[in-house]
Amino acid sequence: MRRYLALVLLACSLARAAADDAKPAASNVPRAEYPRVHPDSRVTFRLKAPDAKKVQVQPGGADNGLGKGPYDMERGTDGTWTVTTPAAVPGFHYYWLLVDGVAVNDPGSETFFGYGKPTSGVEVREKGVDFYDAKDVPHGEVRALWYHSKVTGNPRRAMVYTPPAYDANHKERYPVLYLQHGAGEDERGWTTQGRANFILDNLIAAKKAKPMIVVMDNGYADRADAAPPAAGQPPRFDFGPFEEVLIGELIPKVDATYRTLADRGNRALAGLSMGGMQALQIGLTNPDAFASVGAFSAPPFGKIDATTSYKGAFRDAAAFNKKTRLLWLGAGTAEDRFAAGVKTMRETLDKAGVKHVVYESKGTSHEWQTWRRSLHEFAPLLFTD
Amino acid sequence: MRRYLALVLLACSLARAAADDAKPAASNVPRAEYPRVHPDSRVTFRLKAPDAKKVQVQPGGADNGLGKGPYDMERGTDGTWTVTTPAAVPGFHYYWLLVDGVAVNDPGSETFFGYGKPTSGVEVREKGVDFYDAKDVPHGEVRALWYHSKVTGNPRRAMVYTPPAYDANHKERYPVLYLQHGAGEDERGWTTQGRANFILDNLIAAKKAKPMIVVMDNGYADRADAAPPAAGQPPRFDFGPFEEVLIGELIPKVDATYRTLADRGNRALAGLSMGGMQALQIGLTNPDAFASVGAFSAPPFGKIDATTSYKGAFRDAAAFNKKTRLLWLGAGTAEDRFAAGVKTMRETLDKAGVKHVVYESKGTSHEWQTWRRSLHEFAPLLFTD
Repeated sequence: MRRYLALVLLACSLARAAADDAKPAASNVPRAEYPRVHPDSRVTFRLKAPDAKKVQVQPGGADNGLGKGPYDMERGTDGTWTVTTPAAVPGFHYYWLLVDGVAVNDPGSETFFGYGKPTSGVEVREKGVDFYDAKDVPHGEVRALWYHSKVTGNPRRAMVYTPPAYDANHKERYPVLYLQHGAGEDERGWTTQGRANFILDNLIAAKKAKPMIVVMDNGYADRADAAPPAAGQPPRFDFGPFEEVLIGELIPKVDATYRTLADRGNRALAGLSMGGMQALQIGLTNPDAFASVGAFSAPPFGKIDATTSYKGAFRDAAAFNKKTRLLWLGAGTAEDRFAAGVKTMRETLDKAGVKHVVYESKGTSHEWQTWRRSLHEFAPLLFTD
Repeated sequence: MRRYLALVLLACSLARAAADDAKPAASNVPRAEYPRVHPDSRVTFRLKAPDAKKVQVQPGGADNGLGKGPYDMERGTDGTWTVTTPAAVPGFHYYWLLVDGVAVNDPGSETFFGYGKPTSGVEVREKGVDFYDAKDVPHGEVRALWYHSKVTGNPRRAMVYTPPAYDANHKERYPVLYLQHGAGEDERGWTTQGRANFILDNLIAAKKAKPMIVVMDNGYADRADAAPPAAGQPPRFDFGPFEEVLIGELIPKVDATYRTLADRGNRALAGLSMGGMQALQIGLTNPDAFASVGAFSAPPFGKIDATTSYKGAFRDAAAFNKKTRLLWLGAGTAEDRFAAGVKTMRETLDKAGVKHVVYESKGTSHEWQTWRRSLHEFAPLLFTD
């Protein structure tokens, strides 16, 4: 009898699988069945909430590849709410659930620090693309480096990627890429959402990028003597204290801690969105610190002036071109405002004769797939000329 | 006028602060005002949920220092729900909110992997205790080490603490403590909830513990050819595959990657709860791999037999005592079942003449404060005799 029952259950389970080969998202917690991603990139979300009156899925931000939402979930007879979205753009998408209007994370999802707090995310696989997978190649390490900042008066944590065999090659020195997250995110973003370590592992294994150290700090910093920001308020959008931390504390700490090539030619600064604005602002105005700068989805908004912007960095194009190893700009074609900003900057730089590289990520918007691709395009150009 | 308004607001804010010097918990996300911990260790939780009918705070597990709960929150006129708990036991407490019966995380809290998923937690400061603080002392690093397992057929991640100046002392070799999390947790538990890196930093700075490497792996492992556990089901409670990973793959990987002292005398295995059961089971039955074993809140339940348990490890007490550097057992006085289990094991070992060390954590239960204290007591005894 028990054997018969087991066979029936097996048959049912096979029938279910044949009817729907959606799979749990790679971003789920272990053994969570939902969210599930269908072969055509639709995503099904589910939550058990028998007493709720309304449950919705809310994609994060204006340009989310899951669509705009919110998507109303439909209540099943057992109190389980379900919805399937239209086909999503490939990549990583932040989202949360609205349970009777309260924004909560999906218990089926791992959390990813975005929007200033842990946030659900769903990974939608891009067919034929594996450059950010954890493959069976030599892996670098991601290290949490704690350091005390006099600028902020606090212990701070930076994440540091050291390339494969860093410890074994104990006489080799490496160039360093400083790589910053976006607004609302933190120093974990590039390795969790961005999979920067796997992108570098794969590029290095294929000899497409030089082995390098990547330092990912928290881009927020308040001076020790500043009044704490009001509770519930967003952090200050002031890059000054972070510039002091980066130039005066973090770079010396990294150069003292790791076997770096500690000169400007072997040091790059890049970032996404807010982090890209920091890269342009801090990188271009500290040419003695950085010879390469990358701005992912982060053009200067408003007026850009080849004579005055960035403390006149572009004023003498020939001098800039001579001392700059790489100025790199990227954006997704589906993030209109950012793509337009890059276009304006590109035109200004072209007119001024300032050398630069522009990259367009096809079909992606202000999301991590744009930035994974950007890193994958940017890193091979670093430290090579 | 604006200046006058600012002064009034400042006066209001000072008045509020004087009336209640509760502070946002250290475990909160940046700038989240709630949960707040009062000087007498009561905790106030708050959530805005205007349309909810019932909101509660649910402490995790049976022995939570916040109390049993659930605590009904009271609805304010603006739809904000609030409750203040009785004075909590100091330490880190898992919890979640029940919004109309749906278990969700508190948006004010960072998340901590427990109960098989990201879970809210609140840190209640223990007065006069700073052994797990991030002090201005030399810090070690916590490294994510990715490795491919043939046993499980998957990429796996272990967290590796390397002591301060590990890179600078590039000829020195170090002993290794393998340190495992509890059920429902993962390889991040010991450094996020447990603050193991800061405990070691502080002990090493005070010369109370030998500089050592600490390896924290994921204690769950399924064989590559095993059917995946059913969705929504808890993971298998079978230590066999993890033992194969640890002995056959992780130890060789660690010894090949780091400057270890790669002999049994300089290798220890410890863990908490499920991880402590693994330490006893794997450590005592692989004496060629480990000369020191620590079980935190993890006595063998049921019968312990000095002749047959752990493949007869205790049968010849004199031989065991000669080759074992440390057998360490600990539990909190407020976790009755575990304290009773340790007592039974202690009596059995005493009767058999097996040397061991027992530690009691006063007033704490099956929670991280017991395990932080346990590590703080255990680590100084390692690799010293």
